[in-house]
Amino acid sequence: MPATAYDQLVALVQEVSLLSSTEATLSWDQETYMPAKALAFRARQMSYLNGKAHALATGTVFRKLLEKAESEKPRNAKAAANLKELRRDYDRAVKLPQKLVIEESEICAHGKAAWAEARQKSDFSLFAPHLQKLVSIARRKADLWGYANEPYDALLETYERGARTDEVAALFTRLKPELAKIARQAVEQSASVNPKVLRGKYPIEKQQLLNAEVAASLGFDFEAGRIDTTAHPFCTTLGPADIRLTTRYDESDFTSSLFGVMHEAGHGLYEQGLPQDDFGLPSGRACSLGIHESQSRLWENHVGRSRAFWEKWLPRTIEIFPHLKKVKLDDFLQAINRAQYSFIRVEADQATYDLHILLRFAIERRIVSGELAVKDVPAAWNEEFESLFGMVPPDDAHGCLQDIHWSMGGLGYFATYTLGNLNAAQLFGTARKSKKIATALDKADYAPLLAWLREKVHSQGGTPLPGEIMVHATGKPTDAKWHLKHLRERFAE
Amino acid sequence: MPATAYDQLVALVQEVSLLSSTEATLSWDQETYMPAKALAFRARQMSYLNGKAHALATGTVFRKLLEKAESEKPRNAKAAANLKELRRDYDRAVKLPQKLVIEESEICAHGKAAWAEARQKSDFSLFAPHLQKLVSIARRKADLWGYANEPYDALLETYERGARTDEVAALFTRLKPELAKIARQAVEQSASVNPKVLRGKYPIEKQQLLNAEVAASLGFDFEAGRIDTTAHPFCTTLGPADIRLTTRYDESDFTSSLFGVMHEAGHGLYEQGLPQDDFGLPSGRACSLGIHESQSRLWENHVGRSRAFWEKWLPRTIEIFPHLKKVKLDDFLQAINRAQYSFIRVEADQATYDLHILLRFAIERRIVSGELAVKDVPAAWNEEFESLFGMVPPDDAHGCLQDIHWSMGGLGYFATYTLGNLNAAQLFGTARKSKKIATALDKADYAPLLAWLREKVHSQGGTPLPGEIMVHATGKPTDAKWHLKHLRERFAE
Repeated sequence: MPATAYDQLVALVQEVSLLSSTEATLSWDQETYMPAKALAFRARQMSYLNGKAHALATGTVFRKLLEKAESEKPRNAKAAANLKELRRDYDRAVKLPQKLVIEESEICAHGKAAWAEARQKSDFSLFAPHLQKLVSIARRKADLWGYANEPYDALLETYERGARTDEVAALFTRLKPELAKIARQAVEQSASVNPKVLRGKYPIEKQQLLNAEVAASLGFDFEAGRIDTTAHPFCTTLGPADIRLTTRYDESDFTSSLFGVMHEAGHGLYEQGLPQDDFGLPSGRACSLGIHESQSRLWENHVGRSRAFWEKWLPRTIEIFPHLKKVKLDDFLQAINRAQYSFIRVEADQATYDLHILLRFAIERRIVSGELAVKDVPAAWNEEFESLFGMVPPDDAHGCLQDIHWSMGGLGYFATYTLGNLNAAQLFGTARKSKKIATALDKADYAPLLAWLREKVHSQGGTPLPGEIMVHATGKPTDAKWHLKHLRERFAE
Repeated sequence: MPATAYDQLVALVQEVSLLSSTEATLSWDQETYMPAKALAFRARQMSYLNGKAHALATGTVFRKLLEKAESEKPRNAKAAANLKELRRDYDRAVKLPQKLVIEESEICAHGKAAWAEARQKSDFSLFAPHLQKLVSIARRKADLWGYANEPYDALLETYERGARTDEVAALFTRLKPELAKIARQAVEQSASVNPKVLRGKYPIEKQQLLNAEVAASLGFDFEAGRIDTTAHPFCTTLGPADIRLTTRYDESDFTSSLFGVMHEAGHGLYEQGLPQDDFGLPSGRACSLGIHESQSRLWENHVGRSRAFWEKWLPRTIEIFPHLKKVKLDDFLQAINRAQYSFIRVEADQATYDLHILLRFAIERRIVSGELAVKDVPAAWNEEFESLFGMVPPDDAHGCLQDIHWSMGGLGYFATYTLGNLNAAQLFGTARKSKKIATALDKADYAPLLAWLREKVHSQGGTPLPGEIMVHATGKPTDAKWHLKHLRERFAE
């Protein structure tokens, strides 16, 4: 039987994935082990591979195969769904002229350096002209891609297919008073918590031992992945059975790397559970950032910060760090779930985290729409921050300059962090309705939960919309009630 | 000024080097960190990149640019030399039909597995049919490449440009009685050496600390390289400023990883000293295996096993491994230079090492010429071994099955190990004639020696023939007298 156009298209897509996964490997090495002086040549290698992948994925051969495959009768539902997503990818990719892509990457290169200096000196004016250019690029991209209501829609669509800015905004507006109230109560209750119970020295090798045992107990397959050390933790996929997690270590606080590893392992379990044979195809990739983040948050927060988890793992932790032997489970749980108002998002606890996201989403949306001028960002940030947290950042390094994302052109995806929290609570709450899963969770046995996630989420791949995944798994679209209920219960404990 | 054909050819060659250095990075990762289940996909990535690189380096565009560049007036001597080597590479590459290349890689894939099993069971018959096929492929390659006297010439030329089998054989025949005599005397003298002085436990992290300090003291630039752990030590170049060494650790013997690191650092110093701007071009690559091995042997043996080195480094070693504090320098030197007849080449000391090479070169040459049938290899090996070492291997695992090289199609390069020893002695002896270098060596200061090697060897790149490098550096072609003198002096100590 001769190969159909669809077969040929699949082969071409998989060729692109050989190049992009190789580029991902070079990038992983750059972050983990590459010596400093190798940077310039590595950048050339990566840019070369990116260029080749982009040329293949946007070239005439690709377009013709895509058109021909679309004219064929689809082999099955999966093929039809893949074609639809490949068409979406192709259209979005070719709408951006090569010139714009190069311009963006150059602006980002300078923007990152400028941001680093601006944050270090806490001087927004050093970053402002770069942010202006990045916003301008983002708007041009949005115009080229097209959008229903506002430019931000086109950016959000990059990370969360089918999401609409106005709907997210309306959701966040409804959530805001509830989240603010939960946060306030949690912070008040936490005032009496003694964080010193965890004081001590935690050698890195011992943290690594505990982290690896925990990740394996969740189901992370170390024959198809590993954990390394980087300045900023991440999870990256180098191949269908090659998922690399990273973390960083604080020798005075083992929970920092442990929860980091559980978070990244959540991403990693999702990637390890995707349909391996479809690697490179939409049906073999993750659905969206909001679904991805649901997996990391589920394992980090719903599993990792629960009483049942620590009933099993505190004794083992004490074996590894004997100076903790007098710590009581209740005190330990209070310490790891202590709520505090803080300026820095990545250091925020579960009770206050979403407030940081609501803030940033609102600011970003106004910047992109043009309603908020770049020069006015610090003032707007601080005003909004005070209304949410009751305190004003001491400087812009602790305010609007804290995150690297804007400097990398990353406008439009912060909302997915809170969407991930909502999805996590809904997925976990639904899974827990199964008696088998709930019983296992109470014994810190995660195989039934993982099997459920594998079936309901991971194996679905990337062709359904995020909302379709949620309906498939839980019967309902994303609903904030689960997350609010979870936070209330956790911080009432 | 419009680009000349030579400029365009250089750009194409450098594009090939982006692909091949990327492939080298994937290979390095496979040996160091890659999880087991990633193997199949990694093999596809590497084969894809290899295929792309091969297609570019043997394609019509390459050929036409090469021809056009050859018709231009060469810009300078370097351009002329590069063209000559690129022509040689191209002609050798295109002479092998794609079918043969694929056949060879398939035979090797099976051959490696068969060899591993054969060695494990010490059953040559399991490997013999594969070796038969590999020899047949090697002969076909030799026929396609062409040769002056015998097929082995064409194989040797792959690793040591300009070397002739009959000349190497004549040299080895002359060396044999001398080397055998030195070995015999060294082994006799070593009978009274007490190897137990180094007994103890050497934690890996402490070995790593010492190894890194030593490698840095030789001049290895850790901002342009690093050391990792693998089952078999190697040095690989991932970019012009990215040289990765590997070693393995024996917790009961720190000298194993230390001399391993000094050996690989010798290779690494050479690679770090090549003209960086010419990366990918003949003028930016190493000259030959025999020159490469001269650098590793020079640093490992002439520097690393010398009295002056340990006068400085034994006190530091004792700081790191305090249980050695009663060891006397003389006893230490005797222990690390102890000579013994042994069956396994990679475990052999300096006094007996070359005998292993002479043996294998003679056997290989007879296999390739057809004089020795594959089935008769074990008997021939054992007979020759007995005549050189006065003992017979207890089984083929300790005899003709000990090395992986044949199973990878690596016929023709063992001679370069002994050529490397000869070159090392000659380069080191010549350098030492400089008073400045000798004075520094006596204080274990290696900057002047490295500067001399940089000028005389490293910066010369890969366009001169090995013999030309030796004449440039020492005034004479390779002469065994230096090596014999060095061995006599070392083992008379």
